Amino acid sequence: MSLMKDAGLKISIDSMGSIFGTWSGSSGDRIDGRPVATGSHIDAVPRAGAYDGTLGVLGGIEAIRSLKESGFKPLKPLQVIMFTSEEPTRFGLSCISSRAMAGALDAQSLARLKDVNGTTFVEAAHGAGYALDFEDEKSIIASARQHAFSAFVELHIEQGPELEADRIDIGAVTAIAAPSALQVRFSGSGGHAGALLMKYRNDASLAASELAIELEKAVLSTQSHDTVGTVGKWIIEPNAINSVPREAYLEIDIRDIDKARRDYVLDRIRNATETIAHKRKLQYTFEVLNTDPPAQADKAIVEAIQEGAKRFGLSSKSMVSRAYHDSLFMAQLTRMGMIFIPCEGGKSHRPDEFASSDDIANGIKVLAYTMAKLAGGESHQHSEL
Amino acid sequence: MSLMKDAGLKISIDSMGSIFGTWSGSSGDRIDGRPVATGSHIDAVPRAGAYDGTLGVLGGIEAIRSLKESGFKPLKPLQVIMFTSEEPTRFGLSCISSRAMAGALDAQSLARLKDVNGTTFVEAAHGAGYALDFEDEKSIIASARQHAFSAFVELHIEQGPELEADRIDIGAVTAIAAPSALQVRFSGSGGHAGALLMKYRNDASLAASELAIELEKAVLSTQSHDTVGTVGKWIIEPNAINSVPREAYLEIDIRDIDKARRDYVLDRIRNATETIAHKRKLQYTFEVLNTDPPAQADKAIVEAIQEGAKRFGLSSKSMVSRAYHDSLFMAQLTRMGMIFIPCEGGKSHRPDEFASSDDIANGIKVLAYTMAKLAGGESHQHSEL
Repeated sequence: MSLMKDAGLKISIDSMGSIFGTWSGSSGDRIDGRPVATGSHIDAVPRAGAYDGTLGVLGGIEAIRSLKESGFKPLKPLQVIMFTSEEPTRFGLSCISSRAMAGALDAQSLARLKDVNGTTFVEAAHGAGYALDFEDEKSIIASARQHAFSAFVELHIEQGPELEADRIDIGAVTAIAAPSALQVRFSGSGGHAGALLMKYRNDASLAASELAIELEKAVLSTQSHDTVGTVGKWIIEPNAINSVPREAYLEIDIRDIDKARRDYVLDRIRNATETIAHKRKLQYTFEVLNTDPPAQADKAIVEAIQEGAKRFGLSSKSMVSRAYHDSLFMAQLTRMGMIFIPCEGGKSHRPDEFASSDDIANGIKVLAYTMAKLAGGESHQHSEL
Repeated sequence: MSLMKDAGLKISIDSMGSIFGTWSGSSGDRIDGRPVATGSHIDAVPRAGAYDGTLGVLGGIEAIRSLKESGFKPLKPLQVIMFTSEEPTRFGLSCISSRAMAGALDAQSLARLKDVNGTTFVEAAHGAGYALDFEDEKSIIASARQHAFSAFVELHIEQGPELEADRIDIGAVTAIAAPSALQVRFSGSGGHAGALLMKYRNDASLAASELAIELEKAVLSTQSHDTVGTVGKWIIEPNAINSVPREAYLEIDIRDIDKARRDYVLDRIRNATETIAHKRKLQYTFEVLNTDPPAQADKAIVEAIQEGAKRFGLSSKSMVSRAYHDSLFMAQLTRMGMIFIPCEGGKSHRPDEFASSDDIANGIKVLAYTMAKLAGGESHQHSEL
């Protein structure tokens, strides 16, 4: 917050605890009061690195500060946002504040979220000294939905190895894949692996096996590069060599940049779960934890990012973000774009996460160029940035 | 041991710590010095019941004692054996002493067995005060192999629900199924469930799934009631919804009363493991923990058991033992039979294991009849037993 103040930004905090730093420009020429925004988050996963999220907040402040110093006179306000709870670390749900902003989180759902100590989001907000004017989830959510933007651009480390491997400076994100998370449980009778004859069995692990293979088939049947499906978590009970598996619990992740295609896979898995359970005489439960829509980046923003890279002599490529970001939800509110910079070995969510200061500087320059272009206004020297 | 002494049996302890109680009969008419033996074990699994094994030891002593009291004069010695370490609880291997007796355990394998504290079998034997004359595994094993029998009959609770459900008093075991235990590990590269595209994956859990389904297919293809196969244990790493499974470790149990048929299934699984790993570009290991041969009961013994039941007005049926017993290995040394009595709800290996005193008395009567028949000798009044 003090960095935002030092950069001469006007500070505000919304009902979800997100912090906004706004520069409204110096001229009276403004034709649109809705800001061109950037930003990211500074909360982290356990044993995290120092770049995921933080880069987009500090880089956003620096981009606006440098535009200000360059004498640029924007026609729209420039804004940097530090989002609350992007990582699901504390409350189990990702992107809590941007999700609320986008209207993709209702008061009931927010009320259900609790941390390991049973503390609700409202209690935590009050404990941290904000949202004191908002008594409950309903008022918090209502207030969070009042933001309006003319565009949103997020600077982030790639969290993958592509840019580094291809020796490319800047990634212009064209789409963000969104995961659908499922929980499937098959329940049978179990029994002794020696004594229970095959015809009396309803082995839950065999149902799980068939479902895992069906998921792979369904994903491959789309013939799309961008569709992925994974049975990442398996819990088999009682899990002993001489016991027929009585229960199989699976957690399934399906991602795509195309919602219809992802939902086609999801529906096939839902149907397969029922068919397999019926065939194998098992009980089952099928729960969809989330089905966030994927997001497409705005074409003009992608072009502005590529143009910015070219302007500064940097190489760029367009790419898909396969990880979640606040931009996924900001895309539901306004046109969206993301700028990726390389990170060492693609490592992220671990202490040795690293991005070089050259790459960081490149990212900030391209971010400033893109924001300036989106904000319109008097011509300015980007080479000074 | 004192019960054996009380019953007037001559006590001996062999190099593996098994205790033998022998009644050589009172006449000089003996034509064969090899005893007709019975017995079982008194060691147990954790949280065990009071009947598994123990019934066969106490029941064996009582059967011989009652034959003695009845004035029966056997042509062969009658013997009861209390086997050491039938359960794999301490050293991880089942039927250690009967396995050694049968020549199915060599000195090298015995030397490799250690309990959780790293204590070897020889150290434990010396610590318990026996086998003090035997310095190493080699001498212990050599000595254990010197037993000879003319027949072996074991009395045991069924450990399954069939007799109780069918209201049958006595089960005459025709065969003991033997498990083959396998450990299979598939190892791949893992990766992020969002970022790693399908074409770059080698998901270990999908290989495990295919293998589990192939096992079921292979077993069902035998079209035999008595062939069973189970993937009981599954360990998937790192086992997180957003991670492609890097490693899958499976423990597989295959049982049959026919060795060739069981080994056909085993070979199919060995081949499938290789084929699947190759197709999915995974590393793999395939280990056979054991492939004990199944055992067929001696026809004449089965008939003697059925005859005995009839003689005492008891119902009987022939059945397969799908659990391991010392009899599995005794069958490699001599002709073998087993007598099952009902146990409540088929429950075993748990504290509420239960057999009624009526059923126990029935089992002992039939055991005594069978041993008398196998030992030959002067006619005697079984109704007194």
